[in-house]
Amino acid sequence: MRLVTVRIDGATRAGRVAGDEIVLLDAPDVRAVLAAGPVTSGSSPVDDAGTAVPLEGADLAPVVPAPDKIVCVGLNYRDHAAETNSPLPTAPIYFAKYRRALTGPHDPIRLPPPEVSTNADWEVELAVVIGREVRNASLSEAAAAIAGFTVLNDVSIRDWQTRTIQFLAGKTFEGSTPVGPALVTTDEIGDGSGLNVSCSVDGVTKQSSNTDQLVFGPAELVADLSTILTLDPGDIIATGTPGGVGMARDPKEWLSPGTVVRTAIEGVGEMVNTCVVG
Amino acid sequence: MRLVTVRIDGATRAGRVAGDEIVLLDAPDVRAVLAAGPVTSGSSPVDDAGTAVPLEGADLAPVVPAPDKIVCVGLNYRDHAAETNSPLPTAPIYFAKYRRALTGPHDPIRLPPPEVSTNADWEVELAVVIGREVRNASLSEAAAAIAGFTVLNDVSIRDWQTRTIQFLAGKTFEGSTPVGPALVTTDEIGDGSGLNVSCSVDGVTKQSSNTDQLVFGPAELVADLSTILTLDPGDIIATGTPGGVGMARDPKEWLSPGTVVRTAIEGVGEMVNTCVVG
Repeated sequence: MRLVTVRIDGATRAGRVAGDEIVLLDAPDVRAVLAAGPVTSGSSPVDDAGTAVPLEGADLAPVVPAPDKIVCVGLNYRDHAAETNSPLPTAPIYFAKYRRALTGPHDPIRLPPPEVSTNADWEVELAVVIGREVRNASLSEAAAAIAGFTVLNDVSIRDWQTRTIQFLAGKTFEGSTPVGPALVTTDEIGDGSGLNVSCSVDGVTKQSSNTDQLVFGPAELVADLSTILTLDPGDIIATGTPGGVGMARDPKEWLSPGTVVRTAIEGVGEMVNTCVVG
Repeated sequence: MRLVTVRIDGATRAGRVAGDEIVLLDAPDVRAVLAAGPVTSGSSPVDDAGTAVPLEGADLAPVVPAPDKIVCVGLNYRDHAAETNSPLPTAPIYFAKYRRALTGPHDPIRLPPPEVSTNADWEVELAVVIGREVRNASLSEAAAAIAGFTVLNDVSIRDWQTRTIQFLAGKTFEGSTPVGPALVTTDEIGDGSGLNVSCSVDGVTKQSSNTDQLVFGPAELVADLSTILTLDPGDIIATGTPGGVGMARDPKEWLSPGTVVRTAIEGVGEMVNTCVVG
């Protein structure tokens, strides 16, 4: 099943994709659907609301607009480590984002004004969406707690990210992080392995890799995080970005107003976002 | 005014402290009170619910049980920088905690089991509680957005904090972080400056400082954060800890099951928490 959160009449509604339509569900967003019970291609824990809207042109919100947690993982691709001559991490490198950083899969990417920063960078990532409460999980329990996957562009304001030793400031600018378009459930997409991941900027491919290059895979991340605290339905784990970011180029490249960023993961979906200031 | 969140009949209710009683309010928690409007000693934006419970023995929840954001600040005390021969930071060092890390002001501090870590450490901190939405604030606008202050013990699992270059993993263990007992509004406590801050472990004073030693004060932190994203009513900003943590001692000292930790800030309040495993 492909679940989305759509904006209608000033509020949000959960929906499931059925052909070229979104069948609305009796829930305000995808988090509420997941909190109600397991979702598979064959069954949803909440009822259809009795209406549908066209998929094309739908005003999609972040697939989970207000997760309890957004966990990001740094330096988690083997090809990226190799190209930067970095050692592979021996444990997952976690940092956070706040809800207000999120934006919809077709929304503008909000850049800070130039007097705050001109160093905005792209980072396509496979994002895990948690389907059930899980704590102290084994690998198999962790895999079973994953509802599915979506796409996340972990847009990073590099000078704020490196202003201090902690990344958070540069990772959570308001409206900087598109996530969506849909949650694709594991019974449809599998365990997240072997998927091509790509990012293009104004039509030029900048990142092209495969989730087989992940150092720590989705279930490993969920198991490890669940040692720290309980994960909840709707939690998002952005699994890290492959090589090809603007910061690592010579000369460095940054996003600017009007730039169009396309992020895609094979079988999961594609987002297209135009950069704006403010 | 002193606002608390109290657990009653399996749910939480906001309350205001009146002498030796808590007068219950028509709101589920302090975040909901703040979201309803400004709070001063003379007036609350929500009505009394018509009942009161004794303050002594009340089962207090984290003063804001589910903030939209918990922002922590590292290395923000001058005396701590001096004792560790660290340079003063040139910008605030931010990292996050998740809601599930929080616990009440008289609750146990939950330590990980010994096979996960035995390196739990104390960190008394003055915590800012945001009273209104604020973005791109001047210093005076930032000061005006602060509803008041509370106490937070940023208990840190040091081996997980230093497992990678990012602190988050060691800062967000479930039930590790007491916060409370009350939000004390700025018209009662002032701007947070000049307050004695202390932490004792099993009756022995380990941290003793004053908020005059803060490198970045509450309004500076709020103004800077508001450049990144909108702060919301109920958001918590833990302003950093002074010298005297267990990690910096020779030999190092750690919290263990049965240890009693008392954290206090002059005029704001005191928390007493006993460590337990799990």
